[in-house]
Amino acid sequence: MARFFRKRAEARGQVPGSLIFIGRQKVERTSIKVIDYNAENLNEFELTGVDQLGDLATSSSVTWINIYGLHDVEIIRSIGARFNIHPLALEDVLNTGQRPKIEEYDDSIFLVLKMFRYDPADGIVHAEQMSLIVGSNYIITFQEQPMDVFEAVRDRIRKKKGRIRTVGTDYLAYALLDSVVENYIDVIERLGERVEDLDGEILEDPDREIITKISHTKREVNYLRKSVRPARDAMLLLAKLDHEILTEQVRPFLKDLQDLVTHAAEAIENYREMLSDQLNVYHSTLSNRMNDVMKVLTIFAAIFIPLTFIAGIYGTNFEYFPELHYRYSYFIFWGVLVAVGGGMLIYFKKKGWF
Amino acid sequence: MARFFRKRAEARGQVPGSLIFIGRQKVERTSIKVIDYNAENLNEFELTGVDQLGDLATSSSVTWINIYGLHDVEIIRSIGARFNIHPLALEDVLNTGQRPKIEEYDDSIFLVLKMFRYDPADGIVHAEQMSLIVGSNYIITFQEQPMDVFEAVRDRIRKKKGRIRTVGTDYLAYALLDSVVENYIDVIERLGERVEDLDGEILEDPDREIITKISHTKREVNYLRKSVRPARDAMLLLAKLDHEILTEQVRPFLKDLQDLVTHAAEAIENYREMLSDQLNVYHSTLSNRMNDVMKVLTIFAAIFIPLTFIAGIYGTNFEYFPELHYRYSYFIFWGVLVAVGGGMLIYFKKKGWF
Amino acid sequence: MARFFRKRAEARGQVPGSLIFIGRQKVERTSIKVIDYNAENLNEFELTGVDQLGDLATSSSVTWINIYGLHDVEIIRSIGARFNIHPLALEDVLNTGQRPKIEEYDDSIFLVLKMFRYDPADGIVHAEQMSLIVGSNYIITFQEQPMDVFEAVRDRIRKKKGRIRTVGTDYLAYALLDSVVENYIDVIERLGERVEDLDGEILEDPDREIITKISHTKREVNYLRKSVRPARDAMLLLAKLDHEILTEQVRPFLKDLQDLVTHAAEAIENYREMLSDQLNVYHSTLSNRMNDVMKVLTIFAAIFIPLTFIAGIYGTNFEYFPELHYRYSYFIFWGVLVAVGGGMLIYFKKKGWF
Amino acid sequence: MARFFRKRAEARGQVPGSLIFIGRQKVERTSIKVIDYNAENLNEFELTGVDQLGDLATSSSVTWINIYGLHDVEIIRSIGARFNIHPLALEDVLNTGQRPKIEEYDDSIFLVLKMFRYDPADGIVHAEQMSLIVGSNYIITFQEQPMDVFEAVRDRIRKKKGRIRTVGTDYLAYALLDSVVENYIDVIERLGERVEDLDGEILEDPDREIITKISHTKREVNYLRKSVRPARDAMLLLAKLDHEILTEQVRPFLKDLQDLVTHAAEAIENYREMLSDQLNVYHSTLSNRMNDVMKVLTIFAAIFIPLTFIAGIYGTNFEYFPELHYRYSYFIFWGVLVAVGGGMLIYFKKKGWF
Amino acid sequence: MARFFRKRAEARGQVPGSLIFIGRQKVERTSIKVIDYNAENLNEFELTGVDQLGDLATSSSVTWINIYGLHDVEIIRSIGARFNIHPLALEDVLNTGQRPKIEEYDDSIFLVLKMFRYDPADGIVHAEQMSLIVGSNYIITFQEQPMDVFEAVRDRIRKKKGRIRTVGTDYLAYALLDSVVENYIDVIERLGERVEDLDGEILEDPDREIITKISHTKREVNYLRKSVRPARDAMLLLAKLDHEILTEQVRPFLKDLQDLVTHAAEAIENYREMLSDQLNVYHSTLSNRMNDVMKVLTIFAAIFIPLTFIAGIYGTNFEYFPELHYRYSYFIFWGVLVAVGGGMLIYFKKKGWF
Repeated sequence: MARFFRKRAEARGQVPGSLIFIGRQKVERTSIKVIDYNAENLNEFELTGVDQLGDLATSSSVTWINIYGLHDVEIIRSIGARFNIHPLALEDVLNTGQRPKIEEYDDSIFLVLKMFRYDPADGIVHAEQMSLIVGSNYIITFQEQPMDVFEAVRDRIRKKKGRIRTVGTDYLAYALLDSVVENYIDVIERLGERVEDLDGEILEDPDREIITKISHTKREVNYLRKSVRPARDAMLLLAKLDHEILTEQVRPFLKDLQDLVTHAAEAIENYREMLSDQLNVYHSTLSNRMNDVMKVLTIFAAIFIPLTFIAGIYGTNFEYFPELHYRYSYFIFWGVLVAVGGGMLIYFKKKGWF
Repeated sequence: MARFFRKRAEARGQVPGSLIFIGRQKVERTSIKVIDYNAENLNEFELTGVDQLGDLATSSSVTWINIYGLHDVEIIRSIGARFNIHPLALEDVLNTGQRPKIEEYDDSIFLVLKMFRYDPADGIVHAEQMSLIVGSNYIITFQEQPMDVFEAVRDRIRKKKGRIRTVGTDYLAYALLDSVVENYIDVIERLGERVEDLDGEILEDPDREIITKISHTKREVNYLRKSVRPARDAMLLLAKLDHEILTEQVRPFLKDLQDLVTHAAEAIENYREMLSDQLNVYHSTLSNRMNDVMKVLTIFAAIFIPLTFIAGIYGTNFEYFPELHYRYSYFIFWGVLVAVGGGMLIYFKKKGWF
Repeated sequence: MARFFRKRAEARGQVPGSLIFIGRQKVERTSIKVIDYNAENLNEFELTGVDQLGDLATSSSVTWINIYGLHDVEIIRSIGARFNIHPLALEDVLNTGQRPKIEEYDDSIFLVLKMFRYDPADGIVHAEQMSLIVGSNYIITFQEQPMDVFEAVRDRIRKKKGRIRTVGTDYLAYALLDSVVENYIDVIERLGERVEDLDGEILEDPDREIITKISHTKREVNYLRKSVRPARDAMLLLAKLDHEILTEQVRPFLKDLQDLVTHAAEAIENYREMLSDQLNVYHSTLSNRMNDVMKVLTIFAAIFIPLTFIAGIYGTNFEYFPELHYRYSYFIFWGVLVAVGGGMLIYFKKKGWF
Repeated sequence: MARFFRKRAEARGQVPGSLIFIGRQKVERTSIKVIDYNAENLNEFELTGVDQLGDLATSSSVTWINIYGLHDVEIIRSIGARFNIHPLALEDVLNTGQRPKIEEYDDSIFLVLKMFRYDPADGIVHAEQMSLIVGSNYIITFQEQPMDVFEAVRDRIRKKKGRIRTVGTDYLAYALLDSVVENYIDVIERLGERVEDLDGEILEDPDREIITKISHTKREVNYLRKSVRPARDAMLLLAKLDHEILTEQVRPFLKDLQDLVTHAAEAIENYREMLSDQLNVYHSTLSNRMNDVMKVLTIFAAIFIPLTFIAGIYGTNFEYFPELHYRYSYFIFWGVLVAVGGGMLIYFKKKGWF
Repeated sequence: MARFFRKRAEARGQVPGSLIFIGRQKVERTSIKVIDYNAENLNEFELTGVDQLGDLATSSSVTWINIYGLHDVEIIRSIGARFNIHPLALEDVLNTGQRPKIEEYDDSIFLVLKMFRYDPADGIVHAEQMSLIVGSNYIITFQEQPMDVFEAVRDRIRKKKGRIRTVGTDYLAYALLDSVVENYIDVIERLGERVEDLDGEILEDPDREIITKISHTKREVNYLRKSVRPARDAMLLLAKLDHEILTEQVRPFLKDLQDLVTHAAEAIENYREMLSDQLNVYHSTLSNRMNDVMKVLTIFAAIFIPLTFIAGIYGTNFEYFPELHYRYSYFIFWGVLVAVGGGMLIYFKKKGWF
């Protein structure tokens, strides 16, 4: 299946807003974890059905509903019905090939983003889709499978670290997006180290594999870029968005987030350019090597081919061949060989060929 | 005929707004299929003349007139007269080389788009022109020949799938455009798979044909791009258009459409870049191979040319040639050959040439 | 003289607005043809002096004054005086190296454009300058020499084809500009066919000449582009211009014109890119050929150089050379030769070299 | 000293607005030439001190003060004090490495530009800095040394050519800027001719020097571009500037100036691109030549190496060598040689190698 | 650690606004130097604790607090508390991998920038982070270690050079930023000289090391660019910022600063492009050399291989070999050798190969 573009065949020709899971199932069953908190109280539990939510979503406390596993369309549909989510937003949640974007609705903000996992074993970057619906007193996150990045946020809520317990869903949304961008930076850093390693390798010991390595790394960098650039656009839009959910207090944080994701996107461009430069340098290196090989060949050929010719002359069987009978011919012959061979050597030495 | 730019000679010097069919006739006769529906009733029939339409076009029901085959200029002209279509719009409908665009008229919106068909046999993308005139209670679509993509929409109308029967022409227009973009994505996906296959092929087994394949695929990708980019611009404009035909209800769908076609356009750019990178990698591969060939040549030449020279010396017929008569000369001679040859081998081995 | 940039020495240091003809005289004498028409009447004649115009230019009929040949500065000056044309506009009319542009004056709109002629014999695109001054009831066109493109417009006026006789100077201006853009498209199409032919040629039979052909075609495409891009900018401006001469009625036509010239400009970009790609493919082809040549050389050298060496050994004249006297030596010798040569052949076959 | 970027060490760490001459002294002493004129009177003289100016600068006549030589900081300072010039503007006047720019002050407009001199002997473009302060009734120009370009303007003032004597400082400023842009066009034209000459040379007879020529010309073109692009930006700004000094009357002239400098900037881009294309064509030419050289080598090697091997066989000294004693061996031997050699020739001929 | 992108692992998952020093400790202890001045008085001293500041920060004099060394988070925190700095700004101060930026707060302007040090020994550019908080009567600068660039500003304050003692914190901020940009220009100039040196080297004597030098220099130029471009953006924003701290008086200086940093950013682009061109020229040079090597080889091979073949023929031992016994054979043989060899030489001479 095409990795750079993905929309499954079964989704074609469907009514827009149809709920069809497009992607690979990554967890056995869909689980719904809820954290409900305000400055004083914290309530953490797992749901088996949406109806268990009760009036949490409308109470003044912040309710974060975290859903892992998107293959169970029924659960997603019931969540959508409960929170009055637009069918097109739900469709995007379920299509794991969705391009990162932000949508503004009357009572909520909807974001689709990617999260990455770098596998050091094969150097491949894996992407997971993460969707986020921010209401005035609830946040719903949809993930393909549990990932560590949100654990730190959950921990800050539990331990009342920083201001998170005293502020609203907008700050929680910021905290979650911040951890997503941290995840980008983490993966970019690892790929960046790879690129910078290649930079050294290419000058010191460029073997044949390096073209595969450069090509492979470029593909991964492009894969990241494909998702980080629209994510940056979405976050730029978010920082400027005039929506009642976003309080004045959270603005500097969103601005900071925007700077961070811009930094990440620029780093990707830098690494892309470095990889292109590496390819150029590698080309020069190959040409240089070819020159070396050719010089070795030419030196050998230009010295020994004439000498062989001279020897060939005195190997002919002409009956009347005066030099052959002259007593010192053989020694003169050697003299000529040494002179010709030595002359060639001096000539190539002067040309700076060795 | 030039595939990347097409305007037939006969159309030159005509009065603007002249109705001349520019293109290749693809069906035998022009047929007009009508679907007229509202929430309760559905009426589906084929017209033989425009006058049969009666007052359908002005009734409150949604009337979709689907025309296949553009070569019969008279029928197009009578449709134009019946629905008061601007002559320049009709001219564009008939010119199958028209660049995708959107035009806003007082009582209608006019769109020209392309639809694609990928022929897996020869890997060539074929384009069909599709025009769309959206009025407040009618939609007219013009196609060069019947294509499957609209069948799904027709089916949804027949089977009352989704909201399509309860909403107006704007939603039907969206549904049709959505199926056009699905068609783009379908073709991009197939070309994309080809590009990603080439990515593997080029690293593992780059034969000579690959340059033809890359070049061919790039041409097809460029061919798609030529139509998808202006289509994207048209749909961006449509999503922002302030026209009485477009209701508030359909806005999120148009926004979603815009995202989808942007995604498609970006995927095309990604694939274009991948193809350029592949060309670069292929160049490196060629240089590497040349290096290999040269090394083989140089090793053989540098070992055997000196050895042949040595043999040549002892093949000379000098009368006074002391070594020839020495008893162990021949064995020493072999010793020298083995030493020289072995020395060269060690030298090249040390250079890492094999 | 530089073809890509032209401003003759004599024009330097002149008072701005000085009337100096810069260019090559292309007709023997300047001629002034006038068509004066309204819905009922048509009057067509040639002028010998500007004073013969009488009150035509101020009457309510549309007066089109068509001037061929720009070298007679006096005539141009008198026209300028008669119609109160800004000296800078007149200067631009006379400088045939002027960049295409649009200028808005209080009572007129001034356009400078290029028209092209493609010479199939040498594949060179020739440019002519065409200037256009549109007043409320007159149009003056300035051309270096008569060209066919305006003949069709003149014919439509004579034969009352379309609406041209019933509308004002703005529509006539549109009709003239439309025929100019048709001229662009005509030339682009011809160059485009050349580019697409090269696309086939480069994959099937790339001879040495192709680099000259690509380079030559690229130069012509660039030459077109240099004038078409500012022409597109001028027409985009024209379509948006808020000037009393331009009536609401002509707006859709100007919009259509803008689409057409945008299409033309995009086609040029497409062809430029195709030419760059062709150069890349040609480079790969050259490298592939070099590889082939090298393989032939290496196979011959690697097979016969060792064989020659072996023969050389048995050509030496050592007195004590046991093998020479052995009865089957010669046959063993042949066996060794065949074994070595065949071994090499198998080796290269396995490497896939032939 | 770096030619593409220049700011002398002594200027570092100075108070902003400090007057330090940065550049190379090009005239022996600073001279101040004054032309004071209105429609009737003309007064032309040279100053030795600023105090000699009297009330000229405040009178209603136009006063043009032309200063050559910037190394005498005291004179510049006294001019600055007399005309109340902002210290930062004066600092820019004295820094000959200043980037072209425009500054708007309450009572004056300040421009820094470059003027060029093309030395045909070494093909190098030399730049001079020219600054211009336009007040409501005075203009001060600062130059590093006298250059011809302003002489034509001075002449027009003296001979009352055109409107220059009847209009204000804004028109004089335009006239001066126009002569600067004429100077750009002059130099671009000369470089352009060089580029277009190279275009022919590269296809007909590309010797090794051409890479140096292309590289050299590109450097000069880039050097021009570095100054012309910000000059264009400054003149675009000037044409749009809303300042009391600029009268309505001069607007069309400034617009014309803007077109001219845009044309110049575009020409530079065209030539840059042509130079890049030339480099590409040259690369192909080199590869083609290499192919030719390789073919010659391969043909010789592939024909004569096997022949030499055959001769080598019959040069061996085996005692039992039946063919040697056969009467027609020698003639058969020749037959084999001719057959093998001719076969090779036919083979290479068929491959199209010669 | 990745040089082009840096965010240390320990900072991940922290509460936003957490104060964690990210970077390498460069001084042993954090020191706080204070200069407090107005037009009459100057007070300069070192602090050991923030509480020693007293009411300086609120008095009407200008107070510049200069902090070296960022590893002591407690001091930074106390400064932050004392001046009411936003936690996100403080976090940026401590993260030495922060992208240059500007933030506007109600009562202060916050800037993060880089300063550079060029090490001529290894040609590497080292970056230091510099942050700046400008309040209405105080400025706080944060540096990783003392650098000379601010010394000149300090000196101007001490010696009452220029206007610095009579104006407010906005002018001091300008003076500091100006010295930062001077620092950029200084480093760009040095790298630029290196680039221009390479330009000569590549045409005259391109050895193998040059690819490493070009590649290395490009990396350094890119490294500069990465920080100078966002710095330029920040300063462009600053020049347009409408904040009560920025007085009208300082506007022309900020405009000048913007010009200077734009000039610096353009110079970097110029040098980047020059380096790319150098790589291209180097490629051509390599191809040219290869051609030379190949020609030498081909000339030798094409002359001596046929000659050796001829000699080989007469070295065969055929019993019936008429020519061998002819008296003048040997001399004719020599004649043929000279004719063939000479013919080849003439042929290659005519081809212009030597």
